[in-house]
Amino acid sequence: MIPTLQWTPEGVSFLDQTKLPQEETYLLARNYREVADVIRNMVVRGAMAIGVSGAMGVALGIDQSTATTLPELNAEVQVICETLAKTRPTAVNLFWGIAQIRDLYTKLEAANTSIPEIKAQCVALAQTLYDEDIANLKVLGAYGAELLPKEGTVLTHCNAGALAACGYGSALGVIRAAIEAGHKIDVFADETRPFNQGMRLTAWELVKDNIPTTLICDNMAGYFMGQGRIKAAIVGADRIAANGDTANKIGTYSVAILCKEHGIPFYVAAPFNTIDLATLSGKDIPIEERAAREVTHVNGIQVTPDGVGIANPAFDVTPARYITAIITEHGVLRAPFEESIAAMAKIAAAKKRA
Amino acid sequence: MIPTLQWTPEGVSFLDQTKLPQEETYLLARNYREVADVIRNMVVRGAMAIGVSGAMGVALGIDQSTATTLPELNAEVQVICETLAKTRPTAVNLFWGIAQIRDLYTKLEAANTSIPEIKAQCVALAQTLYDEDIANLKVLGAYGAELLPKEGTVLTHCNAGALAACGYGSALGVIRAAIEAGHKIDVFADETRPFNQGMRLTAWELVKDNIPTTLICDNMAGYFMGQGRIKAAIVGADRIAANGDTANKIGTYSVAILCKEHGIPFYVAAPFNTIDLATLSGKDIPIEERAAREVTHVNGIQVTPDGVGIANPAFDVTPARYITAIITEHGVLRAPFEESIAAMAKIAAAKKRA
Repeated sequence: MIPTLQWTPEGVSFLDQTKLPQEETYLLARNYREVADVIRNMVVRGAMAIGVSGAMGVALGIDQSTATTLPELNAEVQVICETLAKTRPTAVNLFWGIAQIRDLYTKLEAANTSIPEIKAQCVALAQTLYDEDIANLKVLGAYGAELLPKEGTVLTHCNAGALAACGYGSALGVIRAAIEAGHKIDVFADETRPFNQGMRLTAWELVKDNIPTTLICDNMAGYFMGQGRIKAAIVGADRIAANGDTANKIGTYSVAILCKEHGIPFYVAAPFNTIDLATLSGKDIPIEERAAREVTHVNGIQVTPDGVGIANPAFDVTPARYITAIITEHGVLRAPFEESIAAMAKIAAAKKRA
Repeated sequence: MIPTLQWTPEGVSFLDQTKLPQEETYLLARNYREVADVIRNMVVRGAMAIGVSGAMGVALGIDQSTATTLPELNAEVQVICETLAKTRPTAVNLFWGIAQIRDLYTKLEAANTSIPEIKAQCVALAQTLYDEDIANLKVLGAYGAELLPKEGTVLTHCNAGALAACGYGSALGVIRAAIEAGHKIDVFADETRPFNQGMRLTAWELVKDNIPTTLICDNMAGYFMGQGRIKAAIVGADRIAANGDTANKIGTYSVAILCKEHGIPFYVAAPFNTIDLATLSGKDIPIEERAAREVTHVNGIQVTPDGVGIANPAFDVTPARYITAIITEHGVLRAPFEESIAAMAKIAAAKKRA
């Protein structure tokens, strides 16, 4: 079990993903501001992990509040939520996670609940979301496993693994579930420049689980597809629009096009809370531009010549037409996605009420 | 003028491309074996540059021979040529360059030429090939310039610039010629993992020439194409088969597919000696697999987890169907390439005889 993040009595403990694979060290965020820093600096990253991190950040902020009246606490909750929401713009799970605790708080406040009781319930919910994340991904994995080949190489991009969630992973969860079900799968992991999540994180966690893994540079995927070496590609998602357009790590769009050109199925694996019904299409998803230094420096050393411009969009949007299926914990979505997503949203809402 | 390689009285001087952009240092290859090392270790790289380097290596070996009889010299020439030919397998220009000097040697030997005269003529030819490389690329550049947009961004992959030749460059020569002709062009340079030729070399030489250049990671090209940002892509070549299939730096194939998907013209710029009529199709081009260390280490530090497999094919083959045009010093080739290449081969042979 990889301890990506964990609630502790002293705060939220994070496996420092910026130090992997060289060092396995932990960073304790002792208050909600430090949780915000940890998300912003990508000590923790991955849609599902930052979703639960956001929830834990809000719960931590509420739990540590010295407010003595509800209006006072309410004002603090607004600041806490805003601070955490401003850390990263693309993954919708972050806003989902924050909203889970904020909505509970609003309900409890409306019921004039005591502050100690509010604190206890918010902390409990954050921990429940953590447990549900792993449980959902195991169900998702079982749905997805059936889509993967019985034998052969599966390509993945970035890290949609245990390190991108509270455990198990979405895309890598599907791969784990397929292997548990007896598929003979090996993984090609795209390096995923510039932050190298594939090289540093996916390779690290798959090797740890004894899953045969080959690291390739991002620009090699097409070559191996042309050689007939790749049987399927599977990635995670940071936000899926109501029409199925999917924002994920930069380079995902290119992988999807290469899959189409080679007749290879391209799967997205993401818990249903990654689907943002309020985002109608990919055009409405904000793309985070990150610091040039992620491209220009390696291990603190500048590797680029002075004077060159740098672009560093952290995500791209893969239009739904390139996606073979979207795998969720409620089942597998297929085109037309607008309809299949709307139908699943109804099922998900009914399950939640039940 | 960037001194990629130069004949000197003491040997062949090479700008050490493994040290760029941090250091501009020169490495003197004092005999043909050191020239072979320099090619193998990619101190010099790029199809045209290693073509002329191969020729200079053979000329240097002949010039330094202590043989006193022609049979003795002949035996040495075989060893020299074999040593240089074994350095890198993909770029055909290397074999072309070696063959230029060997063929001259064979002719002179058959005519029972004196050894001092053989030495003088071989050294003179190596220097002529150097001059012709630059002259050819300037003509090629003029042909290609007309194909580039009057205004906008041109994408390139790897380095097909002055550093990949004796000067000016093929793909970057076309860009230089277009800018000299008044086009308002800026360049997006793919980083080109794992050896980072785009980051280290293309960015370096374009910035030096004040050509506006933005460095992007390989996996970002598709994103910018999707944004309508890229107007054309142009790359070099390491070997072009008789049917137009083109071997070039790993990742070129993916760029070509992305161009097709976005309706963007994809150009190959290469001197005619990059076309190998003896290679019927891309299937017959050997792809060099280079050391894992190029992927696993950055600045001497291991960045990958232990236990992960590594793939490092240095080239891929772009089928002719993805290529809008191949630009040479004899003019522009278009589909059907088998026919246009055969026709140009006749013209080139006639020019050579003239």
